[in-house]
Amino acid sequence: MRQLQDIDTPALVLDLKIFYENLEIMSESRPGLSLRPHVKAFKSSVIAGILKKYGHESFCCATIREIEGLVEAGHKEDILLANETLDASRLGSLVANGARITVAVDSEATIIAAAEGGVKEVLIDINVGLPRCGCDISDAEMLSSFAKKHGLKIRGVMGYEGHLMFIQNKEERSRKVNEAMEILHDAHLIVGGDVISAGGTGTFDINTLATEIQAGSYLFMDTRYAKIELPFKESLSVASKVISVEKAKRWAVSNAGVKSLGMDYGKPSVQDGVVGICSDEHTTLFPTEGDDSVRWETGDVVLLKPSHVDPTIAKHPRMLCVEDGYVVEEWPIDLRDW
Amino acid sequence: MRQLQDIDTPALVLDLKIFYENLEIMSESRPGLSLRPHVKAFKSSVIAGILKKYGHESFCCATIREIEGLVEAGHKEDILLANETLDASRLGSLVANGARITVAVDSEATIIAAAEGGVKEVLIDINVGLPRCGCDISDAEMLSSFAKKHGLKIRGVMGYEGHLMFIQNKEERSRKVNEAMEILHDAHLIVGGDVISAGGTGTFDINTLATEIQAGSYLFMDTRYAKIELPFKESLSVASKVISVEKAKRWAVSNAGVKSLGMDYGKPSVQDGVVGICSDEHTTLFPTEGDDSVRWETGDVVLLKPSHVDPTIAKHPRMLCVEDGYVVEEWPIDLRDW
Repeated sequence: MRQLQDIDTPALVLDLKIFYENLEIMSESRPGLSLRPHVKAFKSSVIAGILKKYGHESFCCATIREIEGLVEAGHKEDILLANETLDASRLGSLVANGARITVAVDSEATIIAAAEGGVKEVLIDINVGLPRCGCDISDAEMLSSFAKKHGLKIRGVMGYEGHLMFIQNKEERSRKVNEAMEILHDAHLIVGGDVISAGGTGTFDINTLATEIQAGSYLFMDTRYAKIELPFKESLSVASKVISVEKAKRWAVSNAGVKSLGMDYGKPSVQDGVVGICSDEHTTLFPTEGDDSVRWETGDVVLLKPSHVDPTIAKHPRMLCVEDGYVVEEWPIDLRDW
Repeated sequence: MRQLQDIDTPALVLDLKIFYENLEIMSESRPGLSLRPHVKAFKSSVIAGILKKYGHESFCCATIREIEGLVEAGHKEDILLANETLDASRLGSLVANGARITVAVDSEATIIAAAEGGVKEVLIDINVGLPRCGCDISDAEMLSSFAKKHGLKIRGVMGYEGHLMFIQNKEERSRKVNEAMEILHDAHLIVGGDVISAGGTGTFDINTLATEIQAGSYLFMDTRYAKIELPFKESLSVASKVISVEKAKRWAVSNAGVKSLGMDYGKPSVQDGVVGICSDEHTTLFPTEGDDSVRWETGDVVLLKPSHVDPTIAKHPRMLCVEDGYVVEEWPIDLRDW
């Protein structure tokens, strides 16, 4: 069996023990269908299969490819495209073959696309404060009627409070989430249906309105999520190897860069050092403040902690699962691209 | 034939006319082997094949996978791994099968790795000021002897002046590049060999020492490179579709986000608007300053101009080549991952 020292780098490395701890904490708090795991975080049908064994049979996705891949792998009980689309024909084919697929809609155009594409069920996506998708609540009734006229079943409402996900103080986060969810509550009274789909890792236990929480990052966490009060721990790193050390040891260079690390929330972090420059396939590591020189030698494996786990995972073809220092499994990231 | 309106989004879209103009400007300035196209920029064996037709038969790569893919596609005349590695065994297999592969080395450890892995030829990588790889010039002689003792042929030196690539003023850029190249010149006197490999898109015409320039971004350009005086034009965009427009038209949302755009140099740019928030699969677009509302409608195709082209391309499985508004070719990005 391979140890970290033996793997090709860069590579995604998952601490399997922490992964399952995170999974179980969430499953206890949000059992079965009260969690709709967000596939965009992990993009792996293998992980979807594991979540299903823990009772989570419904999934949500951000892309059509994620849905196609889930269905190919046999996970077709109840998948939500938690996103708008103007071409639902690929989804309609899956529905025609027995998959249950629901699509978020927030306009007449997206309703027409769903109906013409062959999708049968929708959620009315309501804007709850994040400047992104979702209709204004004043349009909920009109869109609801419009969808029904087009033969679509309305399962309920969706609203994503993404702008509140990273408020550090839990009390403040909780208060603001409640305010946002009042909008969704009112929309649900208008639209009806069984489903109120909302939330994420940062609000999984404070969003009390949602009948289902859309969370995925909790399985891995990242340095941004680590800053807020949550019971989950970081399980994922990008393993890199030190390929060069400056003569006076003023810096070391590891072979993971921006092509293996999501950079939209900033640079990765590292123990016992400071991350300097990240280029395509390199990260320059400087000593911790106060130290004159870096502690690494050429050949050392360095674990970089990503700032944003979702786009980091999307850059890799596989995830190496490590237990007691050994690679015990290799999970494909098979739901990438579009 | 498909027009932009018909393609699945997000997708990489290449303006084929501008691409060939960029290619020809460079080929005129740096014909044949005086350019060693950097495969890390385009990660496509099809584009390597096109460059070969223009006389550029030698390539440089940042990853072993890029090299393997080039060799699989038959481009095995002269490939440089312009990067250090501690495991050259995959490269040794290619050498044993007739590929000519040279590796950059900057330490005893990387020399041993090259020799043990079955690589026969190396360049001594010299640090010319960028805090990344490359040995101190004072070690050039020692490493050169060490490599020879291990049976390696030394083809020459390499040095990357990446820290000078984006100096806006050409005169200043030129002066600093000359200073950096004095180090490489001195190292070459010590090490010998035919090759002085250096440079990039930003220094292709001012690095007069290099026998070969390592450039790739010039084929596409990006908003960062566009800021400096260069004869190349932006040929690449990420095509996205407007999936939602806020009721008062205060913003529009397009379906390309950080999973389809390199973010390490910042957000993408857009014509007739301001890029707001980029999330996984969304970009929120606000009106241009002075405008009250966005000009887009749901369904519109929006071209986002990436800030950094290399990691943007690495996020996509293919590139759609557009001519006179039609998709005329589709090139696979087949050299991704590691």
